[in-house]
Amino acid sequence: MNIKDVMIIGGGPAGLSAAINARRRNKSVVLIAKEAISSKLWQAPKVENYLGLTDITGQDLAERMREHALEQGVEFVRDELQNLWEEEGRFSGMGREGQYSSYTVVLAVGVMQEGGIDGEQQLVGKGVSYCATCDGMFYRGKKVAMISQIPEGEEEARFLAELCERVYYLPQYPLKQVVDPRVEIVKGKPQEIIGEGKVTGLRLKDTVLEVDGVFIERPSVPMTKLLPDLVMEDGAIKVDREMRTNLPGVFAAGDCIGRPWQISKAVGEGQVAALSAVRYLETITSKV
Amino acid sequence: MNIKDVMIIGGGPAGLSAAINARRRNKSVVLIAKEAISSKLWQAPKVENYLGLTDITGQDLAERMREHALEQGVEFVRDELQNLWEEEGRFSGMGREGQYSSYTVVLAVGVMQEGGIDGEQQLVGKGVSYCATCDGMFYRGKKVAMISQIPEGEEEARFLAELCERVYYLPQYPLKQVVDPRVEIVKGKPQEIIGEGKVTGLRLKDTVLEVDGVFIERPSVPMTKLLPDLVMEDGAIKVDREMRTNLPGVFAAGDCIGRPWQISKAVGEGQVAALSAVRYLETITSKV
Repeated sequence: MNIKDVMIIGGGPAGLSAAINARRRNKSVVLIAKEAISSKLWQAPKVENYLGLTDITGQDLAERMREHALEQGVEFVRDELQNLWEEEGRFSGMGREGQYSSYTVVLAVGVMQEGGIDGEQQLVGKGVSYCATCDGMFYRGKKVAMISQIPEGEEEARFLAELCERVYYLPQYPLKQVVDPRVEIVKGKPQEIIGEGKVTGLRLKDTVLEVDGVFIERPSVPMTKLLPDLVMEDGAIKVDREMRTNLPGVFAAGDCIGRPWQISKAVGEGQVAALSAVRYLETITSKV
Repeated sequence: MNIKDVMIIGGGPAGLSAAINARRRNKSVVLIAKEAISSKLWQAPKVENYLGLTDITGQDLAERMREHALEQGVEFVRDELQNLWEEEGRFSGMGREGQYSSYTVVLAVGVMQEGGIDGEQQLVGKGVSYCATCDGMFYRGKKVAMISQIPEGEEEARFLAELCERVYYLPQYPLKQVVDPRVEIVKGKPQEIIGEGKVTGLRLKDTVLEVDGVFIERPSVPMTKLLPDLVMEDGAIKVDREMRTNLPGVFAAGDCIGRPWQISKAVGEGQVAALSAVRYLETITSKV
């Protein structure tokens, strides 16, 4: 596979800035983003504090930024990573559309989902999972609940039904079809995932489902799933001044590393992350 | 005196970004800069990594940035601060042209003079001084040397000659006139300021001048003089992720807080510094 120097996850201002700066240093770059253009920026009616561009609409600014990255030879991919792992100094990303490989990663995934469901953060890996395909086997013959914000969860629930004694499915969207006769549909909003050290139940408004596992399906994959060893702080990815995370070769920039959620901040951090990645690449190439 | 919310020192990308962001939050801003426009940026033949503005000359970018700040109602002053002090939560700055007052300060002074002369950093305040007017009295009847990179030092040397037993003047520029009969001109480049705990001499190539004090005059005033209690780290102003220095109400951004010396980084940091200053202003106004 074609191994890139830098894999950038996220196509907002931080990701695009990282991309052009890595390209200026003549590094190969793949930028993976769910959207062709940042919808958050696109929707801004006006941006008045991005120095040098006065009185511009979010849409114009987003287009200019993307144009700039295209001109610099950034390879764009519209995809969403489902898995990301490191092996012998090389990162592999598995998306819905393809597979990607690189020596460094810049996370520019935008605002992190803060909090989620009560109890979720504490019980990740202790009964809370974001991937039925990955973790379903651990629940063979047991009871599980799946909370899904997207119809894609139905497929996952069917898979779980083949393994588990009981599968509760809690669609957080208007359900259109029967999922599977073995899957029990439960209506309502989950209130809390219960358990001391491991999941024992899921509290709804009027009842508690006794389960051994809770699967959660959201439109975006939480960083805690993509990189379970990534250190977070106050709901954001922890980085130092060089935008290094705790994982060698993994950098982060923009809203995902904390407030203020602002364009210039994100662009500056993307630049620093890219330059740090370039420096890191020098250290590993000298080893090879 | 008209007290501003934010006093910004430095008119490069970091200072201008801080200025527009503070103005967007409706804070009054005075921006003090030695140059009407950043000469460093102005001289860049081309800037290709400021996201959204492709293929622009440094001159065009500098002008756009300054225009942007003018549009936002930033008050520009062309001056150089000689002194800066804090009293009862209010900062006062004394320049060559005027006096300025504010509740917060953003330092955006550009690349810090690293190192200087051997021994200089260790002996600041222990015989090394940057201001004859301020510290001359301490050397009454003693021997001092003045190292000056600018003709303005001659005036300072004359003043010292009125107080001191002996004044050596080491011009680091082509000297055009007799300074003062009482001032002894010494040619050559200073190698090292000598002293354990206090200055005892100044080493030149072939000789050592025995002196009690060394005055240094440079085109820009070192931060260690303007704010002696400001904590530095590796030759840069130490800040946290919110761009707060160790001094309450004093923030810093851009090249002066460390590498990489890049425009986007500076602009992002200027934004964060301004927003942190705005937050700080809220805490002090609620007290008043």
